[in-house]
Amino acid sequence: MKRRDFIKLAGLALAGAGWGRATQAADRKRPNFVVIYADDLGYGDLSCFGHPTIRTPNLDRMAAEGAKLTQFYSAASVCTPSRAALLTGRLPIRSGMCSDRRGVLFPDSGGGIPASEVTLAELLKGAGYATGCFGKWHLGHLPPFLPTNNGFDTYLGIPYSNDMDRVGGAGRAGITNPKVAYFNVPLMRDDKVIERPADQTTITRRYTEAAVDFIQTHKDKPFFVYLAHNMPHVPLFRSKAFEDKSLRGLYGDVIEEIDWSVGQVLEALRREGLDKNTLVLFSSDNGPWLTFNEHGGSAGPLRDGKGSTWEGGMREPTIAWWPGTIRAGSLLTDMASTLDVLPTCAELAGARMPEDRIYDGASMVPLLTGTGPGRRNIMVYYRGTQLRALRKGPWKIHLYTRTEYRGQTLEKHDPPLLFNVEVDPGEQYEVGARHPDIIADLLAEVKKHQATVKPVPSQLEIPLPKA
Amino acid sequence: MKRRDFIKLAGLALAGAGWGRATQAADRKRPNFVVIYADDLGYGDLSCFGHPTIRTPNLDRMAAEGAKLTQFYSAASVCTPSRAALLTGRLPIRSGMCSDRRGVLFPDSGGGIPASEVTLAELLKGAGYATGCFGKWHLGHLPPFLPTNNGFDTYLGIPYSNDMDRVGGAGRAGITNPKVAYFNVPLMRDDKVIERPADQTTITRRYTEAAVDFIQTHKDKPFFVYLAHNMPHVPLFRSKAFEDKSLRGLYGDVIEEIDWSVGQVLEALRREGLDKNTLVLFSSDNGPWLTFNEHGGSAGPLRDGKGSTWEGGMREPTIAWWPGTIRAGSLLTDMASTLDVLPTCAELAGARMPEDRIYDGASMVPLLTGTGPGRRNIMVYYRGTQLRALRKGPWKIHLYTRTEYRGQTLEKHDPPLLFNVEVDPGEQYEVGARHPDIIADLLAEVKKHQATVKPVPSQLEIPLPKA
Repeated sequence: MKRRDFIKLAGLALAGAGWGRATQAADRKRPNFVVIYADDLGYGDLSCFGHPTIRTPNLDRMAAEGAKLTQFYSAASVCTPSRAALLTGRLPIRSGMCSDRRGVLFPDSGGGIPASEVTLAELLKGAGYATGCFGKWHLGHLPPFLPTNNGFDTYLGIPYSNDMDRVGGAGRAGITNPKVAYFNVPLMRDDKVIERPADQTTITRRYTEAAVDFIQTHKDKPFFVYLAHNMPHVPLFRSKAFEDKSLRGLYGDVIEEIDWSVGQVLEALRREGLDKNTLVLFSSDNGPWLTFNEHGGSAGPLRDGKGSTWEGGMREPTIAWWPGTIRAGSLLTDMASTLDVLPTCAELAGARMPEDRIYDGASMVPLLTGTGPGRRNIMVYYRGTQLRALRKGPWKIHLYTRTEYRGQTLEKHDPPLLFNVEVDPGEQYEVGARHPDIIADLLAEVKKHQATVKPVPSQLEIPLPKA
Repeated sequence: MKRRDFIKLAGLALAGAGWGRATQAADRKRPNFVVIYADDLGYGDLSCFGHPTIRTPNLDRMAAEGAKLTQFYSAASVCTPSRAALLTGRLPIRSGMCSDRRGVLFPDSGGGIPASEVTLAELLKGAGYATGCFGKWHLGHLPPFLPTNNGFDTYLGIPYSNDMDRVGGAGRAGITNPKVAYFNVPLMRDDKVIERPADQTTITRRYTEAAVDFIQTHKDKPFFVYLAHNMPHVPLFRSKAFEDKSLRGLYGDVIEEIDWSVGQVLEALRREGLDKNTLVLFSSDNGPWLTFNEHGGSAGPLRDGKGSTWEGGMREPTIAWWPGTIRAGSLLTDMASTLDVLPTCAELAGARMPEDRIYDGASMVPLLTGTGPGRRNIMVYYRGTQLRALRKGPWKIHLYTRTEYRGQTLEKHDPPLLFNVEVDPGEQYEVGARHPDIIADLLAEVKKHQATVKPVPSQLEIPLPKA
């Protein structure tokens, strides 16, 4: 038995005695969870979030039947740390799933999600849920780090970004005029590569079909589906049925296929009579990759995009759906984050969370069910291990900024910049001079937060072991 | 009899024989029309157009029950010409309601809408409609130019912008920290001043009450209501009930009161059983006044704002509502314009349009009723008398640009800049080098359009007559 496996088994044994086990769930029907995660989708890229030419009727309907969350944050502005935060409920700085040298994991990376982390899938599996992961993983592609070794019963997907393993095309030109063969990315089922290069033209459709199939197969017990599309991360691909369909061009085609996918999932839930007992959450891992121009999305009214700690990098177009429980047509403006997803699911599943670690989120149940306000009053904005900004209530200070899409160099701000991001979501009007007291208060929060952070080794800097 | 009065009477006589008269309306119930026009509202300022913190439940519901138009243009980026175009169906360059020296009419202006123009109100009055105007006029404040001399049975409103007649406050500071007494603007009923300065804190509420009253009084005959709010043009005022209500601050309060107003109007229509027989159109005269920072709105994903021929200056957040006729929840992405409103109302009212002049619009009836595509394929973007840009299909060329909110100087482009504004609504990615053929085609459209334009004297440069 490998050391890693031992730790995992020990974890499961522990689960029997502690975290994961449902506390009082035996006598009530616990909801299913479906988390749909888009890749590099911008805040402004859905019709219901104001895009003029991308048509997203299924997401619009989802919002009309559920809730639109307009101040919902991912915990990082790039892929690996954002996904680590979603699945652990903890800031990447605590799990080592971030780095200043390498923003994300690459095919030559030897690290991944530490065994000591308890993923949302592990927590729910321990509580008796069936767990399926479909799509992009990006938390390590070596065996110990794969979904099936981290709480998921099954996996179908590309284990990292769809622009990696480049074998052809001339750099940027290969991305903006993509062919499947340029990207030798593997498609895996569980821990086996089943196709290489993955045919990305059908990838959104196949993930969707697998997720729908999983829902149908597991309709009689509680389940957790994590449907993490590779799209609309460049290179952009869509299936035949969506070719040249959107006024927004290739990028629009891709979003409209994701919209179709959401429709398929919700329809499957309705068909199986599960809609009243399933919480579906749609969001994105980070902001739009603006450096790819029309191949990247739009942050709508927000500033900057992917990689940035301006709002456009981390505020995501988010929709929550649970007919009968979430009030149809809700507009939820309270702050929330992917960091809150794990505590939310834990509460609803009656699963006990580990008590030996710091969590950075709080349950969204009161907010979603309309029984109380949002519990998040503070959001921290990291890039790698560097805390660049902090928000408290409507106020946000920037300690460091970098306009990512223009490739500007990092700027330090002392005193920090101050914005009221509820009055000024576009962060256009700096108001620090008028509010030194607020800056002082937020700087105190920075200190308070930083006191909770202990350095851990970065998982993103570990090289592949020698063959 | 003054010459002006004679012309008006001759017009009405003419109406009996020609335009205005209903053609085949006797035997069917013709719809009522309500046009709600906001002032300086930005494309991104409503929840349903993507604003994160302004709550507009009534406008959102209006869109959910009706249609959201995402490529709808005003015909100018400032007030007077925009409103002239709405009410005449003609470009301001044809009526003289624009100028390069003065963008709009001022209290010291002696001109106004020419007697030779046939307003939408005159057309509908001639067809038997009751006509009421509530709010900002801005097409001339001397007697011949007032609403009641231009087709409206009744008027309540401030005849020009709410920041004029300044008598106090220190310039910009008086606007961003406004008091009613700083702006000695008159409130008129028909052709009489009834209050000066107008109490702007109650102005949105009073316009709304007057419009609702008009609807109730005229429920038994077809009517046209033009409800043109002075808000959210600076200085911003709202009634007590909306003070500090919005997360978006003062500007948000003001929009939320306008949203309330829309709810009152739609509720009155439902209450009187008129909802199935009334077309309500909500839009704005031009983009947000960005130079006033948080006191101005947001163009969302669009570039620049008021005064500009970038999209943010002239593309407006527009909603059409007509339960039973417009399909609920429609997303209409076809191009349309305020220039199309008059032909639309004329068709629906069965009113004949004058045939002795050029109209710049086409009926939106097929688009709104889902019986055909939008009829507009070209939009021209003027600033004063200068044609600065032209759009055909998804393509837009800029002959001249000026980033208004930064106060940049006018730039001439030869060859013109080219954008695909459906793929790139934010006009970020110039693609002229790849499409010389498209530029050539659009330049030919410029020539074709310019050949239809004959110089007329500007009404905006006429001084007040000596007392």
